[in-house]
Amino acid sequence: MWVSIVGASGYTGAILTNFINKHPYAKIRALISSGREGTAISDLYPGLEIDDKTTFSGMLDEYSVSEAIEKSDLIFTALPHCKSADVAAEAIKKGKKVIDLSADFRLNQTSMYEEWYGFTHGYPELLNKAVYGLCELNKEKIINANLIANPGCYPTSIILGLAPLLKNGLIDEKDIIANSLSGVSGAGRGANLGTSFVEVNESVKAYSIGSHRHSPEITQEVSKLAGSEARVTFSPHLIPVNRGILSTIYTNPKNNITLEEVKALYDEFYKDSYFVKIEKNGILPQTKWVYDSNYCRIGFAQDKRTNKLVIVSVIDNLIKGASGQAVQNMNLMFGFPENTGLEANRLIP
Amino acid sequence: MWVSIVGASGYTGAILTNFINKHPYAKIRALISSGREGTAISDLYPGLEIDDKTTFSGMLDEYSVSEAIEKSDLIFTALPHCKSADVAAEAIKKGKKVIDLSADFRLNQTSMYEEWYGFTHGYPELLNKAVYGLCELNKEKIINANLIANPGCYPTSIILGLAPLLKNGLIDEKDIIANSLSGVSGAGRGANLGTSFVEVNESVKAYSIGSHRHSPEITQEVSKLAGSEARVTFSPHLIPVNRGILSTIYTNPKNNITLEEVKALYDEFYKDSYFVKIEKNGILPQTKWVYDSNYCRIGFAQDKRTNKLVIVSVIDNLIKGASGQAVQNMNLMFGFPENTGLEANRLIP
Amino acid sequence: MWVSIVGASGYTGAILTNFINKHPYAKIRALISSGREGTAISDLYPGLEIDDKTTFSGMLDEYSVSEAIEKSDLIFTALPHCKSADVAAEAIKKGKKVIDLSADFRLNQTSMYEEWYGFTHGYPELLNKAVYGLCELNKEKIINANLIANPGCYPTSIILGLAPLLKNGLIDEKDIIANSLSGVSGAGRGANLGTSFVEVNESVKAYSIGSHRHSPEITQEVSKLAGSEARVTFSPHLIPVNRGILSTIYTNPKNNITLEEVKALYDEFYKDSYFVKIEKNGILPQTKWVYDSNYCRIGFAQDKRTNKLVIVSVIDNLIKGASGQAVQNMNLMFGFPENTGLEANRLIP
Amino acid sequence: MWVSIVGASGYTGAILTNFINKHPYAKIRALISSGREGTAISDLYPGLEIDDKTTFSGMLDEYSVSEAIEKSDLIFTALPHCKSADVAAEAIKKGKKVIDLSADFRLNQTSMYEEWYGFTHGYPELLNKAVYGLCELNKEKIINANLIANPGCYPTSIILGLAPLLKNGLIDEKDIIANSLSGVSGAGRGANLGTSFVEVNESVKAYSIGSHRHSPEITQEVSKLAGSEARVTFSPHLIPVNRGILSTIYTNPKNNITLEEVKALYDEFYKDSYFVKIEKNGILPQTKWVYDSNYCRIGFAQDKRTNKLVIVSVIDNLIKGASGQAVQNMNLMFGFPENTGLEANRLIP
Repeated sequence: MWVSIVGASGYTGAILTNFINKHPYAKIRALISSGREGTAISDLYPGLEIDDKTTFSGMLDEYSVSEAIEKSDLIFTALPHCKSADVAAEAIKKGKKVIDLSADFRLNQTSMYEEWYGFTHGYPELLNKAVYGLCELNKEKIINANLIANPGCYPTSIILGLAPLLKNGLIDEKDIIANSLSGVSGAGRGANLGTSFVEVNESVKAYSIGSHRHSPEITQEVSKLAGSEARVTFSPHLIPVNRGILSTIYTNPKNNITLEEVKALYDEFYKDSYFVKIEKNGILPQTKWVYDSNYCRIGFAQDKRTNKLVIVSVIDNLIKGASGQAVQNMNLMFGFPENTGLEANRLIP
Repeated sequence: MWVSIVGASGYTGAILTNFINKHPYAKIRALISSGREGTAISDLYPGLEIDDKTTFSGMLDEYSVSEAIEKSDLIFTALPHCKSADVAAEAIKKGKKVIDLSADFRLNQTSMYEEWYGFTHGYPELLNKAVYGLCELNKEKIINANLIANPGCYPTSIILGLAPLLKNGLIDEKDIIANSLSGVSGAGRGANLGTSFVEVNESVKAYSIGSHRHSPEITQEVSKLAGSEARVTFSPHLIPVNRGILSTIYTNPKNNITLEEVKALYDEFYKDSYFVKIEKNGILPQTKWVYDSNYCRIGFAQDKRTNKLVIVSVIDNLIKGASGQAVQNMNLMFGFPENTGLEANRLIP
Repeated sequence: MWVSIVGASGYTGAILTNFINKHPYAKIRALISSGREGTAISDLYPGLEIDDKTTFSGMLDEYSVSEAIEKSDLIFTALPHCKSADVAAEAIKKGKKVIDLSADFRLNQTSMYEEWYGFTHGYPELLNKAVYGLCELNKEKIINANLIANPGCYPTSIILGLAPLLKNGLIDEKDIIANSLSGVSGAGRGANLGTSFVEVNESVKAYSIGSHRHSPEITQEVSKLAGSEARVTFSPHLIPVNRGILSTIYTNPKNNITLEEVKALYDEFYKDSYFVKIEKNGILPQTKWVYDSNYCRIGFAQDKRTNKLVIVSVIDNLIKGASGQAVQNMNLMFGFPENTGLEANRLIP
Repeated sequence: MWVSIVGASGYTGAILTNFINKHPYAKIRALISSGREGTAISDLYPGLEIDDKTTFSGMLDEYSVSEAIEKSDLIFTALPHCKSADVAAEAIKKGKKVIDLSADFRLNQTSMYEEWYGFTHGYPELLNKAVYGLCELNKEKIINANLIANPGCYPTSIILGLAPLLKNGLIDEKDIIANSLSGVSGAGRGANLGTSFVEVNESVKAYSIGSHRHSPEITQEVSKLAGSEARVTFSPHLIPVNRGILSTIYTNPKNNITLEEVKALYDEFYKDSYFVKIEKNGILPQTKWVYDSNYCRIGFAQDKRTNKLVIVSVIDNLIKGASGQAVQNMNLMFGFPENTGLEANRLIP
């Protein structure tokens, strides 16, 4: 099968390129990056093991995007929000499958794009067709989908951490707090003062509490799982690591539940999910344990004095939180084993 | 005035030594570190600007601790918990003032030491006399105290962050969540695998959720402020920085309150507190802003969809969270201006 | 083929375990780690993708080491120096092949072990039989060897950086300076103050200049390449990264030589070396470009005012500098393609 | 005395502002930063302890620079090279004293500016009058100077490391190698991909070997000290720390010299230099030991096999390498004790 990546030069695009390049069943047709036509990818990412002659195709020439679409079976769109939708819509129209790594198809209502992203969505009919590509929860729909909204990094860690409890109605969906820590690569490639080394190193900060664009995505999906409108307070933080998201999620159990019961519930819920690992009781996962891998690892703690059940969920924001999950979606859509080309990392320590 | 420091070779002790060494009104009588008798401090801490001939006194020789006590006006005890109490008790008995940087006098009931620290407290009568040395809240008591329990680092950030709301009964004290991030120096000096560079760098983890020894300290002080038994869920995390604590605190306001009102409340509450800075609305503080300083900085956010009021509080765990606050307590006890010898850092960036 | 690893719980041993675990032609017979018998490897290294039931065998029971040797085709020894030799000698005696990751067979003369390591080598006859396993330089000997001395991390980066110049007699072998920077994992796993996070982070230091144990190894191999006794000044430095070695090597060309000629020389010299990449002129490699991979990348610069030719060479100290090269040696010894199981990393960024 | 800083918003300018703000004898007249007129400094640098109402004056309005000059006794110019010279020249013309933190007056010949900086120097007559402000070496000249060229960060560490040997003719000035490592703040404030967190963290690189603009400055000053044209190979490297320069300098002693003799020589040479500390033999300094301080610390090692004498010199690039040394120069020029306002840091660890 032939694949094209539109927006291939950012971190997400480059890692995706690398995955596809090593994938046994998929081949790259075109790598599109506006303004980088003719640049060798290995010049931009010297650590990437790829043929030195592989260069970016152009985007200034609109034809080449269209041509890429026509000659591919699957298009990954990894452009900034609002721009991705145009390319995705063209591809869908031409009968191709699309996995969109932007936010353009994650929200279900056009009004939410106006409120949170400040633009009018051009393709409301596609919002209905798009499947939210959180593989562990929507596997059947993904298999049959033509358009996948690849989930955001923060939402992936939080929703996977909550799903078994919500699906079984065990916690109060009206009072959930998700305190998330993210590595700097989550802000993407590109120079800005806020992500410069000297500003980030030896410091930590919270930002966009109550106003981050992943908030509506989280609330929407949590509500679906709960079967009722949920309230999730989401607080992102920037920490001085390249990669990794750790979400500490505070919930109120409706009834008494032991950690053993919680673990049994999660083990059962994720028993067919290759990429979710549930920790033994007493163990909380670290981001290092999923570094450069597509795993999500989940652990639990309980504060008996306050009756809170706390879930800790870790992913690599660039893999399970972006490119790895995109490949996982591709595998499901095209009938390959879910973990094809996504073998875990070998990074120790 | 003459000062001795018992337990002077750890990070806390060394920073305290440095503060006293530069303090205009206090002089060091003895620096005690068991097993390091005769070692020059500058050999252990080459970056410390101190006379090369200043060496540690010994602790193996019990006499020298006693002698140090007798010849000093104030004793700082910075030993591991349980050991500090013995030295402090001896000093109090000899009519000296004591500031204890361990946990040995922070909790009010001996039963709490049995439950949380696993030892039987040898000086229950001193627990009643000890004043919790959170300077901004207990100034009058500190001025008249003989024995100060210097607060823990996490509790300092959390209690200062909550005090104005609790004192005014504006939030539900039965449902508070404090999610705290700490730099590695909080674990003290000394080699262990869990704080080795390779294990900590490029990773983040939660630990001791619901079971950290600062939990009862936080709950005890929050309850006092609320005037009723509080419930605080406390989750510490280890992040790859040397210094800094950031606490993100989730509260439920009893009534509608705007961020402007919150800011006005905090400005008023801390108007005489030199070392507390309230951020402008829209600004959340970073740990870098208090690096190597005795300040606590506090900012606010509101999630209107979930009706949560979120407080973000930052300190330097080694300064306001330990040695700096100890000096601030000394200043109050001995009638010096509160900020004597504690001028802010000049570290930018 | 069956493989046993003696000393499997350190960073080097664990990464080696991971490589063998995923290797298509090799299978693990026994993982020996003294004092860890019965411990699941995944408990020690939760990020390692390995069967949870794989546990360490014991070393206290000497029989099990012997048994492991008897039932294996190849033994990797990754014990501290002096201890590795005993296990290796036993394996050789039993007709097995051995790759030793310690320094025990790297030096050619027993007197050097007395001088640099302070012990009397128990197996002088094996020193003559051992082949220095720098794959790119000794491929033929390795193919036929029974006992491989896997090179040190610093020497690997320096010798590969110098070989083409030395082999062709183009530089003065009596005046070479190698200034090397290493990540902290080079010090191994285990707690000590010198590698604790707080001590290493936000700092850099030189150490053991002129006295590091890799000095005689470097000088010995450089002398062989030069065909005459060389003098190499070697200065190691510790930098705050987990992984990576960057060696900046200063040489005096005997005759005028352009950077184009240097590049052509290296391209030709390493044309059959899968794991050596020569940078384009004007490009100097970064350690990130070889992170978690078995590559060595080499670039050049010239200071025309001082007539120095400077070589910059980077490796991952844990892969090409240890476990990766050990696997590469195994591949050569057993007739597998050199890069089997050593596909490059996918870590970007 | 009144001071103005032109170019006050970069890291160097901000630290200088902080120093002057706390200096007992100097007062700030104007802080000029083009495009930031009216911005509060505390908004740009929230960690800086300065009156919230202190704002930047403007530079768009040329008058205000001139006015600042007229109303000040001393002007610090911290603009990009080429631009600094204009302001400095105007101030000198108006009879004011100037300390220029750019490179505009460091080189002695206009031709060197053409060769290394690519511009034609507009004030050749001032090049002759400017004094190279390396305080420990040029104290007398600085005291009487009107125009100071504040040294570069790398040159400061290297020249201080070499001066005693060169002045006494003990090493071959034709074969010196300076391998320097610098923290990221040396690149200044401002966003660019090369200094973004994700690119720098967990990596190390060499750059501009033989072509860095500090090369001619180093060679010029080393030649003066040697009394003969020197050849210094200079290799800068970028390491993932905020601050600190460590230079490892390789020299060839003309005659046998012991490390004891070297130490005695340095002790004597720097006996009146408050800010230079010579390590005991066997100790090599770390950048952490001078973090946020104006000290330069120097240690030695010898490789007896290769007959190299190696000097290791550390500074904080932003303090002794820039703003601290500028204040030290001011103190000398205006008759204050050299260390006024430059008390050492208290950062441990």
